[in-house]
Amino acid sequence: MKPKRELGATNALYPTLTILVGAIVNGKPNFVTVAHIGIMSIENLISISLSKICHTNLGVRENATFSVNIPTEAQVKETDYCGIVSGKSVDKAALFKIFYGTLDTAPMIVECPINMECRLVKTVEFPKSDVFVGEIVQTYCDENALEHGGVDLAKVRPILFDMNSRSYWSLGEKLAPCWRIGRDLEE
Amino acid sequence: MKPKRELGATNALYPTLTILVGAIVNGKPNFVTVAHIGIMSIENLISISLSKICHTNLGVRENATFSVNIPTEAQVKETDYCGIVSGKSVDKAALFKIFYGTLDTAPMIVECPINMECRLVKTVEFPKSDVFVGEIVQTYCDENALEHGGVDLAKVRPILFDMNSRSYWSLGEKLAPCWRIGRDLEE
Repeated sequence: MKPKRELGATNALYPTLTILVGAIVNGKPNFVTVAHIGIMSIENLISISLSKICHTNLGVRENATFSVNIPTEAQVKETDYCGIVSGKSVDKAALFKIFYGTLDTAPMIVECPINMECRLVKTVEFPKSDVFVGEIVQTYCDENALEHGGVDLAKVRPILFDMNSRSYWSLGEKLAPCWRIGRDLEE
Repeated sequence: MKPKRELGATNALYPTLTILVGAIVNGKPNFVTVAHIGIMSIENLISISLSKICHTNLGVRENATFSVNIPTEAQVKETDYCGIVSGKSVDKAALFKIFYGTLDTAPMIVECPINMECRLVKTVEFPKSDVFVGEIVQTYCDENALEHGGVDLAKVRPILFDMNSRSYWSLGEKLAPCWRIGRDLEE
């Protein structure tokens, strides 16, 4: 067996996609950087995990809606900033142009190439985190981030998060087609 | 406002990390490819979402354990294959060298640079998916994927999954430091 090092109970489930979550908190739009996210079900259910002390949680609970905004590499400073400062003391919405879709309480960021408005369907609580499960209601994409009518990640240039190195990373090249390259191993 | 296209309720929360989940099913090790995963809490809680019809679910429920194995780019064929064929009919464990850690029922793949053994702490059910929340018990990393004692993703070369293009992607370059680059915007 090749040598393996035991790292203790360390979360190494990285990289993850970095997003900006939008909500209306105390009547005002607010955004927070989140990279502890997940896909719950193929029925368009996604999860965002926020620290219990996060200002945004109040708004998600009150309005039962939130938005997911996927920033592009050029927005890495704004994205990082929204994870450093709290909406309690700073008006982070002033950094962006905002639009609304079919929900009144899911503010979205014009400058982000992809936006999803979500309805809260479940809250899972852990001692230090609130996990909000949202159903995607509508998805918006910049015209110039599309290819053949679908999202093209090479044009989106998403920001990936890695806790190991405490760094953001770029997406690389397309590697192989899914549900096809493995057929080479079928007998 | 720049032009945005409405895509309907489309999950665009990609890319995600592609993993191989291990479990003992009917007394035998089995592995399945999963990319609908998530981080639930900073308390080392992660989630994997499996279709209700998946063979692996039986073993996760029975033993209340599973493993997470992070394959590297060179394993893209094996990784894809484990998402195409079912453990009901194929012995997928025969593809790999297997080892066990502190749990008896969380088989791990030697060839994958990172492995985590997990104890099931919660199951969240949706109509089409079982979401298993696991607490990481121990993490293993190949010696040659470490840098200064921590995981180095540039050496791991993980496989990212994108449903938009139905493709696997590589990780790119390091972009910026977290909780630092955004300080440029502070007043």
